[in-house]
Amino acid sequence: MNIPQSSFPRIIIIGGGFGGIALAKKLSGKDVQVLLLDKHNYHTFQPLLYQVSTGGLEPDSIAYPIRKVLQGYPNFYFRLAEVTQIDTEKRRLETNIGGIAYDYLVVATGSQTNFFGNQNIESYGMAMKTVPQSLNLRSLILENFEQALLTDDLHERDALMNFVIVGGGPTGVELAGALAEIKKGILPKDYPDLDTRRAQINLVQGSDRILPAMSEVASRKAERFLEKLGVNVWKDVRVSDYDGKQVTTNTDTSFEACTLVWAAGVKAVSIKGLDAEELLSRGSRLKVNHFHQVEGFEEIFAIGDVAQMETEEFPEGHPMMAQPAMQQGESLGENLARLVEEKPMKPFKYKDKGSMATVGRNKAVVDLKKFKFQGVFAWYVWMFVHLYFLIGFRNRVVVFINWVYNYIKFDREARLIIRPFKKEYQVSKKT
Amino acid sequence: MNIPQSSFPRIIIIGGGFGGIALAKKLSGKDVQVLLLDKHNYHTFQPLLYQVSTGGLEPDSIAYPIRKVLQGYPNFYFRLAEVTQIDTEKRRLETNIGGIAYDYLVVATGSQTNFFGNQNIESYGMAMKTVPQSLNLRSLILENFEQALLTDDLHERDALMNFVIVGGGPTGVELAGALAEIKKGILPKDYPDLDTRRAQINLVQGSDRILPAMSEVASRKAERFLEKLGVNVWKDVRVSDYDGKQVTTNTDTSFEACTLVWAAGVKAVSIKGLDAEELLSRGSRLKVNHFHQVEGFEEIFAIGDVAQMETEEFPEGHPMMAQPAMQQGESLGENLARLVEEKPMKPFKYKDKGSMATVGRNKAVVDLKKFKFQGVFAWYVWMFVHLYFLIGFRNRVVVFINWVYNYIKFDREARLIIRPFKKEYQVSKKT
Repeated sequence: MNIPQSSFPRIIIIGGGFGGIALAKKLSGKDVQVLLLDKHNYHTFQPLLYQVSTGGLEPDSIAYPIRKVLQGYPNFYFRLAEVTQIDTEKRRLETNIGGIAYDYLVVATGSQTNFFGNQNIESYGMAMKTVPQSLNLRSLILENFEQALLTDDLHERDALMNFVIVGGGPTGVELAGALAEIKKGILPKDYPDLDTRRAQINLVQGSDRILPAMSEVASRKAERFLEKLGVNVWKDVRVSDYDGKQVTTNTDTSFEACTLVWAAGVKAVSIKGLDAEELLSRGSRLKVNHFHQVEGFEEIFAIGDVAQMETEEFPEGHPMMAQPAMQQGESLGENLARLVEEKPMKPFKYKDKGSMATVGRNKAVVDLKKFKFQGVFAWYVWMFVHLYFLIGFRNRVVVFINWVYNYIKFDREARLIIRPFKKEYQVSKKT
Repeated sequence: MNIPQSSFPRIIIIGGGFGGIALAKKLSGKDVQVLLLDKHNYHTFQPLLYQVSTGGLEPDSIAYPIRKVLQGYPNFYFRLAEVTQIDTEKRRLETNIGGIAYDYLVVATGSQTNFFGNQNIESYGMAMKTVPQSLNLRSLILENFEQALLTDDLHERDALMNFVIVGGGPTGVELAGALAEIKKGILPKDYPDLDTRRAQINLVQGSDRILPAMSEVASRKAERFLEKLGVNVWKDVRVSDYDGKQVTTNTDTSFEACTLVWAAGVKAVSIKGLDAEELLSRGSRLKVNHFHQVEGFEEIFAIGDVAQMETEEFPEGHPMMAQPAMQQGESLGENLARLVEEKPMKPFKYKDKGSMATVGRNKAVVDLKKFKFQGVFAWYVWMFVHLYFLIGFRNRVVVFINWVYNYIKFDREARLIIRPFKKEYQVSKKT
């Protein structure tokens, strides 16, 4: 891997998500050597992936080169690599570009879509956790509308225009809202020869309210916003199977839809060698103590979605979201610096800064600790917060410009099938 | 294809490039039915593809949804389709989504990279005529640098950092300049553990000057600009073979480079059924008369790169560039409207608005008819003209913002490997 030996202890961070990046930043200037590994050469701002899928944003605006983050940090190295195994005894990693030893290891691999073992849904449904996945979904949506024009079978045409979004968390809610706005504002103009009013957007939630991690008033209000936009919200319904067209549920309700987006669960990304049953919680998260040390190891840490720290407030670990990951990265950064200086570590304390979700233009819900609000102001707050946490000045400006433009023009111009997803549209591999 | 019958004559336009779009716009409001076919659902602003490849622009900023162009034009239809054959006797097209009859047919299929039959160069070299191709090149460049870090073989490492750009036209010159700026401004900061000064950018031109279609002063000045930036310009050298690493030429000169970009020739995209030898010129362009009628047909027209209209000024047809294509589209639009109204058509007259190429920041060359200039002012003109011809207000703003940012910060932040190009980096198909 060509990482030089150094007199400083070597910290290897696996994953350049919110946690890994926050940690790396905290370690700059400390007496450590840092190696950051990621299978992408960029950090992904996952909360805005749904806007890439719906043509509102360009993929490059919500991705940021990891090398750029680390620019000017001495003793920092980045390698584009996938970790295949951890040898905790020898304190060594194996990756697709070779092996390397660590002094401290931080697992920040995040989470991936959890299909709960349903292979049909995994095969035919779409996930939206990475930039390429979001672009695939963007292509599929547009390809289905192009195809809807070609059939005389009304059943088939409806199925091509219908959407089923499984999971009523922020991702599902935001995607459903965006699709509803596209249905209303763009489809009739783009497809005048198609009765796009027939397109149905179904949001299917297994429990009795959407946004279950938020307050009841947020759930209620978000549901009303969605209904105003024409989204069909199904509660207490669980999708059980999907064959690419027919969606079956645990109730009498079923759908015909050629696009099913699965946003109903995530699971931690575990690595061979650190996946023994006793290390993991339900959901495959690594159990960590209050210093983020993985149970049984002094030199292995985990942060973010992949880590489960049981606290009084969160007996099943912190929410798998950007905020806890960032705070954990910062806390661990300080602790690792203290560890190297042979000072005692400080236990992590999570500061809940609230949560939010947007449904559409002028429609968002925000829960702060003491104050909950919904509507236009919440929407501004949502936008401000997302711009603030987006990495990179250029990204912020470009996203802001796109939002202003989309708001004024009721438009989303990135409705481009750059890489076709369906085989029948992959007309030529070279182009 | 579900295009309704209409009492108006049906004009089918194959291709949504500069020519096809200009033509479609001219036909709006006329008593015709228009069907535009393209294998992409977007128009590509090809002159800026090299900036996508070099991480300076996002792909979505130089692409524009064709459906958006046609919004609000009554009797206009778009279909995402690839034409497989033309039956000129039955006046019918066959496509991958079915057949359809035309009253008038306009071939505006443009051009593709011409490897002149050299299969090795086609296999191992990179083309840059479409958005996906440009993104592939972007990925390859970045992947090669990531890989250069991993090898101890100095030979191998140099090859991974070397570039050979074949063809000294505007594309080759602009790409070479952009790569030289990246080498200088970004690589040392992104890859501090790599001696990126060793990276070589070679621009190889078969004739005795680069930019041969421009004035001698432009050629000379562009060459000096390139040399200032550290590009090796090779004249009177022709690349003859490439095995993915070793570049051989017709001279003693040879290169070791893992990235070869072929910008040394284009050929018209012909369609089965309209590719008889007597219809085509050298370079496979369709010979057309001064009304753009394909020889021997009254109802078939060709415009843009695919059309060759022999004139006194251009005995081998107009240059295969955006300007002639747009003017031809406009002229043909007027003529088709006149044809439908049974008025006589007017012969096409090309107005040469000049040509230009940029080499890097503050460095461009512009040839106007009576006035040739180079340097900073030429660079501003180049930017203004490109922004002006870019389709879409949002695209213009986003490109402008990116240019300002890149200029101030000496940066190009879209250096993202979204879809890996090399097999070894395609770690997981699903992500």
